[in-house]
Amino acid sequence: MTIGIAIIGYGKIARDQHVPAIAANDSFRLEAICTRGPVSDAPVPVFDNAAAMFGALGASVQAVVVATPPGPRFALAEAALAAGRAVLLEKPPAATLGEVDALVRQAHERGLALYAGWHSQHAAAVQPAARLLAGRTVGRLRIRWHEDVRVWHPGQDWVWDAGGLGVFDPGINALSIASAILPAPLIVGGACLSVPANRQSPIGAEITFSGIDGAASFNWNHTGAEEWTIDIDTADGLSLSLREGGARLFVGGAEQRLDGAGEYPSLYRRFAGLVNARAVEVDAEPMRIVADAMLVARRGAAPAFHWNGTDA
Amino acid sequence: MTIGIAIIGYGKIARDQHVPAIAANDSFRLEAICTRGPVSDAPVPVFDNAAAMFGALGASVQAVVVATPPGPRFALAEAALAAGRAVLLEKPPAATLGEVDALVRQAHERGLALYAGWHSQHAAAVQPAARLLAGRTVGRLRIRWHEDVRVWHPGQDWVWDAGGLGVFDPGINALSIASAILPAPLIVGGACLSVPANRQSPIGAEITFSGIDGAASFNWNHTGAEEWTIDIDTADGLSLSLREGGARLFVGGAEQRLDGAGEYPSLYRRFAGLVNARAVEVDAEPMRIVADAMLVARRGAAPAFHWNGTDA
Repeated sequence: MTIGIAIIGYGKIARDQHVPAIAANDSFRLEAICTRGPVSDAPVPVFDNAAAMFGALGASVQAVVVATPPGPRFALAEAALAAGRAVLLEKPPAATLGEVDALVRQAHERGLALYAGWHSQHAAAVQPAARLLAGRTVGRLRIRWHEDVRVWHPGQDWVWDAGGLGVFDPGINALSIASAILPAPLIVGGACLSVPANRQSPIGAEITFSGIDGAASFNWNHTGAEEWTIDIDTADGLSLSLREGGARLFVGGAEQRLDGAGEYPSLYRRFAGLVNARAVEVDAEPMRIVADAMLVARRGAAPAFHWNGTDA
Repeated sequence: MTIGIAIIGYGKIARDQHVPAIAANDSFRLEAICTRGPVSDAPVPVFDNAAAMFGALGASVQAVVVATPPGPRFALAEAALAAGRAVLLEKPPAATLGEVDALVRQAHERGLALYAGWHSQHAAAVQPAARLLAGRTVGRLRIRWHEDVRVWHPGQDWVWDAGGLGVFDPGINALSIASAILPAPLIVGGACLSVPANRQSPIGAEITFSGIDGAASFNWNHTGAEEWTIDIDTADGLSLSLREGGARLFVGGAEQRLDGAGEYPSLYRRFAGLVNARAVEVDAEPMRIVADAMLVARRGAAPAFHWNGTDA
């Protein structure tokens, strides 16, 4: 029996990733889309609120994916759980750690599946790297996540709002990989944020980690080729490099052959298993690291940010 | 058998609270003080680092209290646990949630007592209020924590540094009471911070909570009498007011008689029990709420802060 699923929030990530991943997965059938924005390209019925959708479609929708910006995600997920639907959350799973905790409690209470889907954790290098690092001690860690916000979030002002995370929106993908593969939790030692004078959220972040020689550099004002790299040296001499966001893995400089279904196809495969088992799988570590960085960060002013250099 | 204890960090709170509370508790004997600052009023031997103190005093010191500013607290607590000593942490227990998690793991691994001591949770009104609220639904919550930083932290620049928490340093006391007495976790809905133009940490914070009519107002630029008040109305018509930081309790407007040993004496009584049981008691909720507020907060600039209006 396939799982009827609805997409709540129909933006770039829903169109680019969720629709094709659902279409390619035999366990799911896309039943509806719920969005307040105008839609001309929807392959299924469109509703402007979830309550109306649940009412109209009834038991044919057993699960939802919440792919809105992080701000409204909690309320939408709560409502879906209250309506008895399994929930897949885009990353980050909610706006705060308290919201994540509350959703976990509610899913357990109702016996419903809840999955905090960190798509980067499904990159091909992640499981092989985790296996290689298990039981070792990390000596050195360097994360570089440099990309151009104008390319990856064109015109999306919510990324700059309070709670929009700024450069931590991509940076949390790096942290979701690092926390999945490292043999010990990352502890933030300090952080410096660069916040554009006309925005609330950082365009750049430099983080240091305690107990290891560890640093992360997040830059959203980077033009040219993206760099999404995690380099790790272990105390016993193993040298790993995850490149292109975890798509490629180098060990001691030699590229490894990787198998992988692709991030979102792998993520939906996992979600199908959780729905059928009515299980909860929520990794809050990447958000915990970001929250800790924000808690201790020194903030400095960066030049005002404009999408095209002239607009407000 | 009494517990030999050393105080690490000998500032205002150590002198005003820890020394007299230890002296008044038959379970403890103060063995040493560890501080890098000059000390002329110490009642016991003074060391300038903990390793030297543990080496010199050996098994006569079984426990330490870490009463430094939050920044170095983690490294000092880690070292004390590694040296086999029980640890009491002043509030907040560390600088980040990750540090708190790590200390909990280390204490469990070593079978040592660890206590995150939130002194305000030992105020006389807290346990009676928690009993009154158990099983009820909160409709309305108002927290007002208004005091003068110049009175309570005179000249202590660390409160303004990155990680120093600013007005959350007292505000977290209110949150430690609220999270202890409320029947459900507080979920931050939004926050506005006022950050002095020449400082890193907020002098004022306004927080709203989700799912209830809830708000907290923290103000560190308040002159005159302090206001440390938590007002709670339940859905079934109970009206509670905790005043003077939890020292007084009003129910339906009528003041209740309270018994209480005093905050720090009660805290040390609890710590003695944990040391003897080699137990871990760490409540991270107040820090989680502050971290969530910092994560979603809108920041606005406040006038530059100077301790006396003219100094830098």
